[in-house]
Amino acid sequence: MYKGKLITFEGIDGCGKTTQINLLKEYLLIKGYNAIILREPGGTSIGEEIRKILLYNKNYIYPVTEALLYAASRAQLLAEIIIPALDEGKIIIMDRFVDSSLVYQGYARGLGMEKVMEINRIATYGIKPDLTIFFDITPENALTRRKTRKQNDRFEEENMEFYEKVYEGYHKLINLEPERFVVINAMEDITMVQKSIINIINKII
Amino acid sequence: MYKGKLITFEGIDGCGKTTQINLLKEYLLIKGYNAIILREPGGTSIGEEIRKILLYNKNYIYPVTEALLYAASRAQLLAEIIIPALDEGKIIIMDRFVDSSLVYQGYARGLGMEKVMEINRIATYGIKPDLTIFFDITPENALTRRKTRKQNDRFEEENMEFYEKVYEGYHKLINLEPERFVVINAMEDITMVQKSIINIINKII
Repeated sequence: MYKGKLITFEGIDGCGKTTQINLLKEYLLIKGYNAIILREPGGTSIGEEIRKILLYNKNYIYPVTEALLYAASRAQLLAEIIIPALDEGKIIIMDRFVDSSLVYQGYARGLGMEKVMEINRIATYGIKPDLTIFFDITPENALTRRKTRKQNDRFEEENMEFYEKVYEGYHKLINLEPERFVVINAMEDITMVQKSIINIINKII
Repeated sequence: MYKGKLITFEGIDGCGKTTQINLLKEYLLIKGYNAIILREPGGTSIGEEIRKILLYNKNYIYPVTEALLYAASRAQLLAEIIIPALDEGKIIIMDRFVDSSLVYQGYARGLGMEKVMEINRIATYGIKPDLTIFFDITPENALTRRKTRKQNDRFEEENMEFYEKVYEGYHKLINLEPERFVVINAMEDITMVQKSIINIINKII
């Protein structure tokens, strides 16, 4: 349908995906591919405004509101950037996508994955990732990694129980769509993880 | 289910509903009812941030994004204000509600009423207005009234064709749920309109 590819990266905060996303982009550019990195929420002018509300507003955001705001930012990003880029044959590397909403709002916050799926069915214009790379790391190990960071947003202040739910939620999704997911052992060293990712990517581009 | 009542006001911009909403609130307070006015988008701290994006952001907002942002603001307003107020037995007078989204994004912008209905089914926690008062005024007459206003937001810069769609959309909704709607001739003078509204309200409170 589209000339390009949509590759999404998922995992608990602190799993190391941002480092790998940057390495993958470099690799693809050197290979002559037109690759772009996008992040959620945000990536458009409207989306960045939504991002400010989601990550830095001090008021309590109800799970339904939160799911709708993520979906709004996503819908704008799809219409403005992702769909045109896929049409042009670009490789889009996404730092989080629908799966994050399903797991964070749908599962960990208890809104229900089906409701979040319904909202996102409309928000995504029917677009699904060609591949999703899941960074597998236990909530405990992810926490240890997060502690080395300086700036924390609203999500990173959540407790261990929350992240255990997130981890569980991801594994539920992987079981639902095993053909779309590739699970990476995120505890391996950076070079090893990068090699695994490049091997997978080379199969689909 | 709830002790309170949810009364929504709908109509094309310039139909005169804001004036009547204020008059109704005064009337209800004098009669000893606990009445509050809420507006959409907005009404909560999160909602007011969303309002800024929706009404004053200079970038193009795609219809899907727009519908999701309205729904997000609404979901927050319901959880934070409307549901607790209904529980306490208050009379809530809303300046626009789901019908506006159905008509503006769903119908006039062509997103499809069903998609907007689906999003709002989740956003509204199953809450429906006890009564909706529709201010009937032709798009031409509404435009004449709007011209006397000083400040215009993004919607008020729309063209006549858009408002004709909005008008048509409202009438489609009225035909779908005639028992919920009361149609008021908004071209009558302020006192006449107020009398009609008070008559209707007295039947349900």
